[in-house]
Amino acid sequence: MLSSLALGDGNNLGTADGRIALDCSIRETRQGHYVISTTDFFFPLVDSPYLQGRIGAANVLSDLYAEGVQHCDFVLMLLAASLDMTPQDRTICTNLMVRGFRDACTEAETTITGGQTVLNPWAIIGGVATSVVTRDEYVSSDGACVGDVIVLTKPIGTQIAVNVHEWRKRHEKKAKNGDTTGDKNWNKILEQNKNGDEFLTVSESEIMMHAAVRSMSKLNRFGSKLMTKHNAHAGTDVTGFGLLGHAQNLMDNQIAKVGIELHTFPCIANTLKINDNIMNFRLRDGYSAETSGGLMISMTEADAIAYCAELREVETVAYNYNTSSDAGTDFGPWIIGRVVESADRKATITEDAVYLEV
Amino acid sequence: MLSSLALGDGNNLGTADGRIALDCSIRETRQGHYVISTTDFFFPLVDSPYLQGRIGAANVLSDLYAEGVQHCDFVLMLLAASLDMTPQDRTICTNLMVRGFRDACTEAETTITGGQTVLNPWAIIGGVATSVVTRDEYVSSDGACVGDVIVLTKPIGTQIAVNVHEWRKRHEKKAKNGDTTGDKNWNKILEQNKNGDEFLTVSESEIMMHAAVRSMSKLNRFGSKLMTKHNAHAGTDVTGFGLLGHAQNLMDNQIAKVGIELHTFPCIANTLKINDNIMNFRLRDGYSAETSGGLMISMTEADAIAYCAELREVETVAYNYNTSSDAGTDFGPWIIGRVVESADRKATITEDAVYLEV
Repeated sequence: MLSSLALGDGNNLGTADGRIALDCSIRETRQGHYVISTTDFFFPLVDSPYLQGRIGAANVLSDLYAEGVQHCDFVLMLLAASLDMTPQDRTICTNLMVRGFRDACTEAETTITGGQTVLNPWAIIGGVATSVVTRDEYVSSDGACVGDVIVLTKPIGTQIAVNVHEWRKRHEKKAKNGDTTGDKNWNKILEQNKNGDEFLTVSESEIMMHAAVRSMSKLNRFGSKLMTKHNAHAGTDVTGFGLLGHAQNLMDNQIAKVGIELHTFPCIANTLKINDNIMNFRLRDGYSAETSGGLMISMTEADAIAYCAELREVETVAYNYNTSSDAGTDFGPWIIGRVVESADRKATITEDAVYLEV
Repeated sequence: MLSSLALGDGNNLGTADGRIALDCSIRETRQGHYVISTTDFFFPLVDSPYLQGRIGAANVLSDLYAEGVQHCDFVLMLLAASLDMTPQDRTICTNLMVRGFRDACTEAETTITGGQTVLNPWAIIGGVATSVVTRDEYVSSDGACVGDVIVLTKPIGTQIAVNVHEWRKRHEKKAKNGDTTGDKNWNKILEQNKNGDEFLTVSESEIMMHAAVRSMSKLNRFGSKLMTKHNAHAGTDVTGFGLLGHAQNLMDNQIAKVGIELHTFPCIANTLKINDNIMNFRLRDGYSAETSGGLMISMTEADAIAYCAELREVETVAYNYNTSSDAGTDFGPWIIGRVVESADRKATITEDAVYLEV
C-alpha cells in the first residue's frame, strides 16, 4: 500500500490516490527498493539566522526520521535571500542561515548535494531530504494496535513561545523609537503583571523562547534510531496541524480500526497561561501549530517505557542536558496517549487530560 | 566520480567536493543504484498562470532529461500563493498554476506525490524531480570527445522575449491610467520605429513572446529519450547561466581535456535586434539567461545528424508544428558547435559565429 501512497507534509494537492498526507513520499523503485523523499521550507521565525538554518534542516529531516529512516542519503537546500534587507545584512544573514543548515546536516551525517537559491522579499530556508531504503529499513506508519501507547519526543507550545517573543520585541522596538503605545498583546501581559502576582516576567519569556528554539533546532535522529529497535508500530512528527491534528492524520493512515486518546500535554513552561489569558492558540485543543516538533509514536507500553528511558539517557548525554527539575529542563519524551478501538479512527482528548509545564 | 558529485542547478553552496554544479544530484545508493534528484523553483514570468505551471514543471524535469534519464519516478511540488493578490485572484491563479504543473507532469508520465505550500508576497512554482536508475540508464555528463559536435534542442532568447513583453505591458498599463510617460525601454522601441522602417511591431513582439512561452513550456523529454539511442557522450540543459555559461559548466565536468567552440546561435526572431539596439542582454556573448531552455549535447557528427533528424520528426508530429519557414516556426534542434582539444577546458565563441533568427 505505502509504495504508492502520496505522503507530503505541507500540501495534499498532489496526493495521487486521495489518501491523507502523512510525512513523506514513499515510492517503490523499479529495482524493488523504496525511495523516501520529503520537502519543507518556510520563513524565519527566530532572531538568529544560524539557528533558523538549523531549524530548517531539523524540520525537513524530521519527516524521514518519523518513518524510522536511520540515514538520509542526501539533502537539497532551498534558499531565498531577503530583498527586504540591505545587501550587507542579506549577505550576513544568508551565510549564517546556510551555515546553520549545513551544520545540522553534518550532525545528521548527511550531505548537501544541490539545491536552488532565489531572491525573494522574505528569506526562505528549507530543503529536500531523500533516502533509498529496503523494506525493513523504515516503519510504515499504518500498524498501530489497540493497547499501544503514544509517545511524544518533544514538548509542544513552540508557536506560542515564538509569538510572545515577537510581541516583546515589537514592544521594545516601539519604546526605543519613543512610541509608548507598545504591542497590544505584550501590553495585556503587562496588565496581568499589575494584578498582584507577577504573571510573566521578561526572564520567563526568554526562558520560554530558549526552550522553544532548543527544541525546534534539535534533530529527531536519536528518537528515530530507537524506533525500529523498540518495535514502533507507526509514527509521524508534529508540525503545522498541532498535536491533535497530526494524531488524526496518523490514525487516518491505519489499517486497523483504531483511534488515539490523548491524556497528557507536555507544554513548554508558561505557554499555557499565555494560551489561557492572553491569546487562544488552541493549545489545549491540540491545534496550536508546531515547527520542527517531536516524533509521535505508537508502540506497546513495555516498548514505550524502554524507548523513553533509553532516548532520555542518549539525549541527555548527547546534548548535555541539565536534568534538574527547573522549568525548561525536561526535554522529554513522554507517554501522552493510548490507542483504542475506533470504528471511524478518531483522535480525541480525554476529559481528564493533564497539561504539564515542562 | 559522478556518484559523489554534487550537482545543483541554482546554487553551488552545497557542492560537497568543490566541483562545478551541473544539473542534478547523482548519488550512488547503498543498494548499488543511482538516485538522481533535482530541484528548481522561481517566480512567474508569463501572464498565464496555467502556462507558468507548465514551465515550472518543464524546467525542473529538464534537469533529469539532461542526464538522459527517460523516466521521472515522482515529483514533489513547491508552491507559494501570492499575498500581493486579492484572495479571489490568489485562488484562481494558484489553482491554474497547479493545474499547469500537474498537466505537464502527466504528459511526462510521472506522479506528484507531495510537496510544500506557503503564502509569500510573490507567487512561486517549482518542484523536486527524482528518479532511481541503474548505471546504464543515464548519461554521465563527462564523456565529450575531440571531434564531437554540440547539439542544442531549443532556441535562445527567452529572457529578452519576456522582458520586451513586460515593457509593453507596463507601457500599456500606464497609458490606460492616463500616464503618457510610458515604459522607458518600450519608448526606445517606439523611437526606433520612427526611423523609417518599422523596427518592431506589436505583432512581432507578441510572436516573439509566443515563441518563448511555447519553447519554455515544452518538455525536453523527446530530446532526452533520443540521447541514449544516439550515443550521447555528455549533456546538460541551458538555463540561468546562458548558452556559453552552461557550455563552460559542461566542459568543467569533462574527463578529457576538451573545450567547446560555439559557431551557431539560434535566436528567437527579433531578440537579436532588441539585444543590439535597446538593451544589451549579452545574447551575442552567450550569457543571456534562459528559462527551461534546450538540451545541449555532445555527440559524434554522424550521431548528431541522425539525432536532429529524428527529434525534429518526432516533435513536429507530437506538437503539431507548422513547418513553414515563417519566423517562430523553427523549434530546432540545431548543431551549434564542436568539441576541440583544450588544456583548460574552455568554452568559446568562434569569431565568425552565425546568429540565426528562428
